[in-house]
Amino acid sequence: MAAPTSRLLPRALRASQKCSFRPQNTYLLQCLDDASDQGEPGHDVKYTTDLMPHLKRDSRFGELTKEHIDFFKQTLVDDNAIIDGVTKDASNDLEPFNRDWMKKFRGRTKVVLKPKNVDEVSKILKYCNDNMLAVVPQGGNSGLVGGSVPVFDEVVINLTRMNKIRSFDEVSGILVVDAGVIMENADNFLKEHGHVYPLDLGAKGSAQVGGNVAANAGGLRFLRYGSLHGNVLGIEAVLPDGTIMDDLSKLRKNNTGYDLKQLFIGAEGTIGIITGVSIVCPQQSKAVNVAYFGLESYEKVQQAFKEAKRQLGEVLSAFELMDAESQKFVHKKTEKKRPLEGDYPFYCLIETSGSNGEHDNEKLEKFLEHVMGEEIVADGVVAQDDTQIADLWAWREGITEAIGHVGGTYKYDLSIPLKDLYQLVEDTRARLESKGLIGDDKPARGVVGFGHMGDGNIHLNIPVPKYVKEVEEALEPWVYEWIQKKNGSISAEHGLGVAKKNFIQYSRNETMVKLMKQIKQLYDPKGIMMPYKYV
Amino acid sequence: MAAPTSRLLPRALRASQKCSFRPQNTYLLQCLDDASDQGEPGHDVKYTTDLMPHLKRDSRFGELTKEHIDFFKQTLVDDNAIIDGVTKDASNDLEPFNRDWMKKFRGRTKVVLKPKNVDEVSKILKYCNDNMLAVVPQGGNSGLVGGSVPVFDEVVINLTRMNKIRSFDEVSGILVVDAGVIMENADNFLKEHGHVYPLDLGAKGSAQVGGNVAANAGGLRFLRYGSLHGNVLGIEAVLPDGTIMDDLSKLRKNNTGYDLKQLFIGAEGTIGIITGVSIVCPQQSKAVNVAYFGLESYEKVQQAFKEAKRQLGEVLSAFELMDAESQKFVHKKTEKKRPLEGDYPFYCLIETSGSNGEHDNEKLEKFLEHVMGEEIVADGVVAQDDTQIADLWAWREGITEAIGHVGGTYKYDLSIPLKDLYQLVEDTRARLESKGLIGDDKPARGVVGFGHMGDGNIHLNIPVPKYVKEVEEALEPWVYEWIQKKNGSISAEHGLGVAKKNFIQYSRNETMVKLMKQIKQLYDPKGIMMPYKYV
Repeated sequence: MAAPTSRLLPRALRASQKCSFRPQNTYLLQCLDDASDQGEPGHDVKYTTDLMPHLKRDSRFGELTKEHIDFFKQTLVDDNAIIDGVTKDASNDLEPFNRDWMKKFRGRTKVVLKPKNVDEVSKILKYCNDNMLAVVPQGGNSGLVGGSVPVFDEVVINLTRMNKIRSFDEVSGILVVDAGVIMENADNFLKEHGHVYPLDLGAKGSAQVGGNVAANAGGLRFLRYGSLHGNVLGIEAVLPDGTIMDDLSKLRKNNTGYDLKQLFIGAEGTIGIITGVSIVCPQQSKAVNVAYFGLESYEKVQQAFKEAKRQLGEVLSAFELMDAESQKFVHKKTEKKRPLEGDYPFYCLIETSGSNGEHDNEKLEKFLEHVMGEEIVADGVVAQDDTQIADLWAWREGITEAIGHVGGTYKYDLSIPLKDLYQLVEDTRARLESKGLIGDDKPARGVVGFGHMGDGNIHLNIPVPKYVKEVEEALEPWVYEWIQKKNGSISAEHGLGVAKKNFIQYSRNETMVKLMKQIKQLYDPKGIMMPYKYV
Repeated sequence: MAAPTSRLLPRALRASQKCSFRPQNTYLLQCLDDASDQGEPGHDVKYTTDLMPHLKRDSRFGELTKEHIDFFKQTLVDDNAIIDGVTKDASNDLEPFNRDWMKKFRGRTKVVLKPKNVDEVSKILKYCNDNMLAVVPQGGNSGLVGGSVPVFDEVVINLTRMNKIRSFDEVSGILVVDAGVIMENADNFLKEHGHVYPLDLGAKGSAQVGGNVAANAGGLRFLRYGSLHGNVLGIEAVLPDGTIMDDLSKLRKNNTGYDLKQLFIGAEGTIGIITGVSIVCPQQSKAVNVAYFGLESYEKVQQAFKEAKRQLGEVLSAFELMDAESQKFVHKKTEKKRPLEGDYPFYCLIETSGSNGEHDNEKLEKFLEHVMGEEIVADGVVAQDDTQIADLWAWREGITEAIGHVGGTYKYDLSIPLKDLYQLVEDTRARLESKGLIGDDKPARGVVGFGHMGDGNIHLNIPVPKYVKEVEEALEPWVYEWIQKKNGSISAEHGLGVAKKNFIQYSRNETMVKLMKQIKQLYDPKGIMMPYKYV
């Protein structure tokens, strides 16, 4: 391959071990010993009901008794299938299932059930429904909206022990797994067979396939492989009354009736528990390239994105946006040499993944030549090896952790039509500045914007040493109203959970909310699934 | 670019004008004058109720009166918005809306309504619901299962006049259109803006976007761009009670509640009428390549497909399978020189679409070198220009028409796990042979298999000079039972309509059918939408 001919010369990036900012399998336990990076800064995790005092336990739900526990023990005969905090003290054992990894949400469950097959799920869920016991299904507990932990004493049905890969067809790429398979395990298995899981996200080391589907997770491969609504081919789920819905098709196409499985994608466990998933997986790309560049305006970012789509077409696999402030936070935290020498208001990270490295390099170089020549991009670097790829990605993936070191963060995960995507960050900054709330000695330490430009999905983060009412009142409901005016979404990929339950009307009209409540009523007439959450 | 180095030398294919086997806008009217290629051969189109005498008109539904017509006239004030066969004789004008393009299905509607906006749809649908008038929504009337024409005297609500492109965003590729926009018009509009409609199919000249979505159409770009469940971002629909469901999101990601629009994708108009669609459209590929080759066994076809996925990866846009018999029919009909000299039991057509023609050529040549060298593929040709591309595609797209010239065709559109995909054709052939039903002077003139290999979707066709009970009894329910044993689908991309209503149980279990009926009951409690059809 010829050396790059553009002004954009690859620079040696400081080699370092691959950064990992992702919650791994062991992450949850680490969090329990370290209360500094999320949640109410400087404190142990408060109960969700302290954070949200308007939430009241619904008295229709029964309280757990020894009799209930006896039924669960008869039904789940394996050792370790039950953590019983009813007939004995099991607070420590229950704690990891009561709180989320961000340490923002904390419930008071007294029992965790870990069924190992769909029949067990069916039996215990039917029993809960018959006995009016509220239920929270739980996967890897890596959600961001408090969806996977109880609020009060809901029964936690944890899918961790349903962790079998059921089948894989190398010709069609169709994988069928238990819902509790950890996505990184699925991805590793697939890589041994020349394929990849069609989804990638920070929490891959703990997030489970069923949870991905229940939450309709987006993540880093969305731009290339699209939504789970397109990739999930079948679902096995248990309805609240114990009905097993076996819709675990291994077919790409099946036009025989309503596609009911779609309702379960993004339902966050409110109408049933997903126990199995059939999903089509793409071939693994042989070649991956990453470039990082600086741009002078959001106008130029949009031009660069349009050109990237046009010129990189089928090999473009990520187009991520990071603003200047986000990169300052990462720099301050890591003290690493910055990829570019100059300062720019915007930075983008582009990734290509394809079946032929030489071709992909050529396309990327041609694209870079064009965007540099046209002065769309001001400066840039291209990674020369896997270490440099990891280093460049760290400037994107490290933002959340770097910001977290301030103390707490007001986080918003938003979809906005592309042309207005960054305007929100500017408007938020102006608003907080006009109120005198931003500065090194002020309640807010900055306003940061970054995200999946390719998907029209931005993360707006406002780091604060501690959560204060002034900042919160300046932000909410103002941010949601702003989103509503632009016909955006107040939750692009994180879901509603308990955190955003009360804000759905900013993204969905009254009719839609009413129609959603009909569906909830249809599948869960007693309302035992995830009360206090979702619509 | 270097000349191909493999044994596979491009040959000059006979140039010809681009073949069109697709129903165009004018096709419907032509059909009315030509009763030879489909339907009961040699006869004019029978009424659906003659074909299916078990269907009885539901007496709950009102009969149309002058009073109803007066309401429709007051509501739809434009000229030509109503074809009124109630207060006057309008048989000729109604006929194109009463029969399908295959001339297999024919109803007896007395009124066709052509609203021009969602408010008009809402008013007339609410009126029909209030007055117990049965309704059939109709788009381009290009369906294959009799879904878009009435069975008895249902009111036809035709979307043709809702034909506006509402918006297009060149950066995100998001198109919003009225449901009645013809897909070819959408595609042409998009091409002017460097994009394509994510779906392509034979009936593109008459099929409408709303119909595509209602039928969950698959077609030729499915392998590359995936399912409409992934590509459709929003839907505007009118429920039977007149409620306007405005879920016309222009966002790639929106995780705020149940994704209700998904229920309407593939619902075939049974729970409401789609009036608007938001859909994400891919960039137009600059380069297209097509290769056609012969293979010695289905085992080798599978190997070739696996290699194509592996080596062509992101540029592979079609992998179509045609058996020897299908190609003989095309040859007999067109008398064109065949692309390859030898005879093979299987032929495949591969298409690549990418952003760089040189790269794509290189990938394709390398792939062909490999599959020829490994003797996976026996012989092949690569198209050298657009004319040759069209000529090669004609050997795939011309099958349906070529078979049609025998008289009638028993058609099955099936999804089958890839390893067993062709076994069905062989088993069907053996079955009909063992019964002495195949031959030049026998009731069946062959058993033909072809289809979208890349999607696990095969079309099984049995051409007959006339429909006879012996053949039908040999095929049904045997074909459906065969599909059931393999966990396949009895309708991969055509839907249920009236033709397959009674066979759903071969592809969906009792629980799923029950859950589907719940959805129908929820949205259409009076059952006015498409009675006699679907689940």
